[in-house]
Amino acid sequence: MHLHQEEHLRSSDFITDAVIGMSDGLTVPFALAAGLSGSVDSNVVIITAGIAEIVAGSIAMGLGGYLAGKTEQEHYQAELQREYEEVEKVPEREKAEVKLIFAEYGLSPEAQHTISEALAKDKDRWVQFMMKYELGLEEPHPKRARNSAATIGTSYAIGGLIPLLGYVVSDTPRQGLVISAGLTILCLMMFGYFKSKMTGQPPVAGALKVTLIGVAAAAAAFLVATAFNSLV
Amino acid sequence: MHLHQEEHLRSSDFITDAVIGMSDGLTVPFALAAGLSGSVDSNVVIITAGIAEIVAGSIAMGLGGYLAGKTEQEHYQAELQREYEEVEKVPEREKAEVKLIFAEYGLSPEAQHTISEALAKDKDRWVQFMMKYELGLEEPHPKRARNSAATIGTSYAIGGLIPLLGYVVSDTPRQGLVISAGLTILCLMMFGYFKSKMTGQPPVAGALKVTLIGVAAAAAAFLVATAFNSLV
Repeated sequence: MHLHQEEHLRSSDFITDAVIGMSDGLTVPFALAAGLSGSVDSNVVIITAGIAEIVAGSIAMGLGGYLAGKTEQEHYQAELQREYEEVEKVPEREKAEVKLIFAEYGLSPEAQHTISEALAKDKDRWVQFMMKYELGLEEPHPKRARNSAATIGTSYAIGGLIPLLGYVVSDTPRQGLVISAGLTILCLMMFGYFKSKMTGQPPVAGALKVTLIGVAAAAAAFLVATAFNSLV
Repeated sequence: MHLHQEEHLRSSDFITDAVIGMSDGLTVPFALAAGLSGSVDSNVVIITAGIAEIVAGSIAMGLGGYLAGKTEQEHYQAELQREYEEVEKVPEREKAEVKLIFAEYGLSPEAQHTISEALAKDKDRWVQFMMKYELGLEEPHPKRARNSAATIGTSYAIGGLIPLLGYVVSDTPRQGLVISAGLTILCLMMFGYFKSKMTGQPPVAGALKVTLIGVAAAAAAFLVATAFNSLV
C-alpha cells in the first residue's frame, strides 16, 4: 500500500480548530451563566455551574471527538480490506461497478470499458479509486482526529472562561451579566469573523451569525430559567 | 440543471438524528448536574442550571446547525455556478483537470483523453462530475440541514431532561445524583447501542463508548466543581 499520507499537519488546521472550539465555548457557558443570572443570587454558584459545564463540555467534545476519530479510522481500514478482497476475488464485479459510475455520467460502453480495464492494471490504485469514488471515503489522518479533538476541547475550555470573568470581577449576578455579555459579544464577533475567514465564508456575515447564536441562546436560557424559578 | 434530488427525507434520518441528539443531551446536562451536586445544596438550583443548559445547548445546536446548513447550501450553489462558467469559458482547462484526476490513478494519456472528451459532451453531467470528483461536493438537501438541526436540538432537550428527573423526585443533591446517574447510565447505554446500530458501528462497543464519555464528563465535572468550591 502506497497511500498518500500528509506527514505534517498544517498549522492552519490547528488555528481553525482552536477558533471553532473557542467560539463554541463562548456560546453555551455564556448562555448558561446568563440563564442563571435571573434566578440565582450568588456569583459563586454561577461560576461553579460555568466551570462544571466547561469541564463537561470539553470532555464530551474532546473524548467524543477522539473516539469518533478512532471509529472512523477502523471503518476506513475495514472497508479498505474488503475492497482488496473484492478486487482479488470478484474482479469482474468490481469492473462492472467502475463502469456503472461512468455510465451515470453518460459515457459510452467503450469509454467505460477503457477506464475499467486501465484501472484494473494496478490493484493498489484500483482499490484507492474504489475507496474514493465508489464509497466516498478518504483515508483519515491517524493523528488528525485526536489532535483536532484535543485542540477543540482545550479552546472550548478557554473560550468558556471568558464569560465567567464578568462574574468574577463583579458582586451581583446582574452586574456580572452586563460585563459578561459585553465581553462575550465582543469575543464572539472577533472569533466568528476569524472562523469564517478561515473556513472560506464571508467574514462579516459569519461574525453576525456566531454572535446571533450566542445572544439568542443566552436570552432564551435567561427567560426559561427565570420563568421556571418563578414557578417553584 | 437536472440534478438529482431526494424528494422524500428518509424516516431513518429522523431516527438517527433523534438518537444522536438524545445521547448528546444525556451527556452534558447530566455532567453539569452531577458537577453541581458536590457543591450546591439545593435541588432547585441544580434543576434551574440544567434547564438553562438544555435551552442554551439546544438553541446553539439547532440554530447553529440551521445556519451551517444554509452556509453549505450557498457554498454549493456558488461553486456550481463557477463550474458552469468554467466549462463554458475555459473548457480545455477543465478537460485538463479531468485528465489529471485519472492520471493520478495511472491511466494512459489515451484513456484520459477518451474520458475527458466523453464527459465534455454533456455540460450538465460534466459539471456534476467536476462538483463531485474534483471538488468533492455533494448537493446538500435543501431541507435536510434544517430538519436535522431541529430534530437534534429537540432530542437534545428531551435527553437533557432525563438526568434532571433524579433531582425532581429527591430531596437532596446527593440523593438526586444517585438516581440521576442510574437513570442516565441506563439511557446512555440504550442510546449508544441504537446510535451505533444505526450508523453501522458495532453496537456494544458503541454503547460502552457513549456511556464512558458521559461518566467521565460527569466525574470530571464533579471533581473540578467540588475542588473549586472548597477554595472559595
